[in-house]
Amino acid sequence: MTDIYNATPLEARHIIRRGEWDKPTSGLCPGYAQANLIVLPKEQAYDFLLFAQRNPKPCPLLEVTEVGSRWANICATDCDIANDFPRYRVYRNGVMTEELTSVEHLWRDDLVSFVIGCSFSFESELIEAGIEMRHNTMGRNVSMYMTNIDCKPAGMMKGKMVVSMRPIPYDQIVKSVQLSGAIPKVHGAPIHIGDPAVIGIKDISTPDFGEPVDIYPGEVPVFWACGVTPQSIVMNVKPEFAITHAPGCMLITDTKNVNLKG
Amino acid sequence: MTDIYNATPLEARHIIRRGEWDKPTSGLCPGYAQANLIVLPKEQAYDFLLFAQRNPKPCPLLEVTEVGSRWANICATDCDIANDFPRYRVYRNGVMTEELTSVEHLWRDDLVSFVIGCSFSFESELIEAGIEMRHNTMGRNVSMYMTNIDCKPAGMMKGKMVVSMRPIPYDQIVKSVQLSGAIPKVHGAPIHIGDPAVIGIKDISTPDFGEPVDIYPGEVPVFWACGVTPQSIVMNVKPEFAITHAPGCMLITDTKNVNLKG
Repeated sequence: MTDIYNATPLEARHIIRRGEWDKPTSGLCPGYAQANLIVLPKEQAYDFLLFAQRNPKPCPLLEVTEVGSRWANICATDCDIANDFPRYRVYRNGVMTEELTSVEHLWRDDLVSFVIGCSFSFESELIEAGIEMRHNTMGRNVSMYMTNIDCKPAGMMKGKMVVSMRPIPYDQIVKSVQLSGAIPKVHGAPIHIGDPAVIGIKDISTPDFGEPVDIYPGEVPVFWACGVTPQSIVMNVKPEFAITHAPGCMLITDTKNVNLKG
Repeated sequence: MTDIYNATPLEARHIIRRGEWDKPTSGLCPGYAQANLIVLPKEQAYDFLLFAQRNPKPCPLLEVTEVGSRWANICATDCDIANDFPRYRVYRNGVMTEELTSVEHLWRDDLVSFVIGCSFSFESELIEAGIEMRHNTMGRNVSMYMTNIDCKPAGMMKGKMVVSMRPIPYDQIVKSVQLSGAIPKVHGAPIHIGDPAVIGIKDISTPDFGEPVDIYPGEVPVFWACGVTPQSIVMNVKPEFAITHAPGCMLITDTKNVNLKG
């Protein structure tokens, strides 16, 4: 049987589909893009598609599936949206009601899946350039925060942006901006560098999602728009039904990071 | 009264709105992005929005208006979609029936406007770099062609890509790719360089839209995805009602070209 650490993206999706991996996907299939998910009924899909168009930094779309289809076919092939993420969260009227390893039994003919780029893509580029990702070296999930930044509203969709934070030594910040800015399809350049209070973050040591990380002297917190933003929107506007991935438990696509540049 | 050649974008829109300019907008308000238009009923808007998401090179969206609103407010302010383009084309069941200087009398509560980036933005960058735009020096509209390239379909929307062509001396092609590629929100890098037959263009001297231009020895035809593509889609899928700009008669936005980079 294939070890997931040596698997191709397709093999990794099959391992996850069979329920043999239900944990975060960080570090799996290096070089390939991983993806966030939000699934909404068709009734809300136009508003969300427009929301993503107006807010490409938190919501860079890698694929939007056909109405009712469980299968992705642009960012990957043989890709079952309802089973190929290790963990899902189900939201009913804006409240998270279940965390599951498959949502096949909940699928409906009116659902549309939005597959959204993930920071793992630019992180691998930063690591390659010798920039430490503190959450990786500490063996933690990245720190994520609610901000006071209003996303541009679209129809019923509105709410605050979620950001992820990485502490970066001051002399590597410009390089971090340039490298991540060269991959606009996976959040692109940071949205803020420095004082967390400017974007409404009161306590950097208590993230709203993920886990805290250490910030050493000489380091500056750098904030990127985050693909968890749709979950903040869902909690804010309370659609009748939504499915998302569980933070850190991403889809492994067949799309190479290098092809997300430019 | 303000001369349109010395006008701000807002003043230029007011001159056009009053009906005092009904011609192509090439060269007006240098430094500011101009835009293509397609207006569709809400019933087709989701499919077109998804089409644009899947085909960002021919359809880079600068703004999508709220349903029923005649007013843009992201790419420009005080911007009347129904009057601020010099000329419009009206399509009924896929057939162009009218060319008008205002579509105010045709406006409906269910219309959605898609404002799409235009090659004038990257052209000004190429000109700045010393690359001749032959259609400008010949005083003509750019040459545009139907191709055999299938756009990625989305719902009912499907059809062939339209491209614009500029002859470029072989030793300026790499620079042209790099400079236009740095502005992905206005068509980005070329989609083809060289033999027109490869993308289904039989006779380079007879464009399907715009006017022919001379190609000199040592020059190579370079093809960019074109914002006239939505008109090819409309002619192909024949929605009940659609409005587009007339080729060359664009909206002058308040968005600076430099802000469309990255």
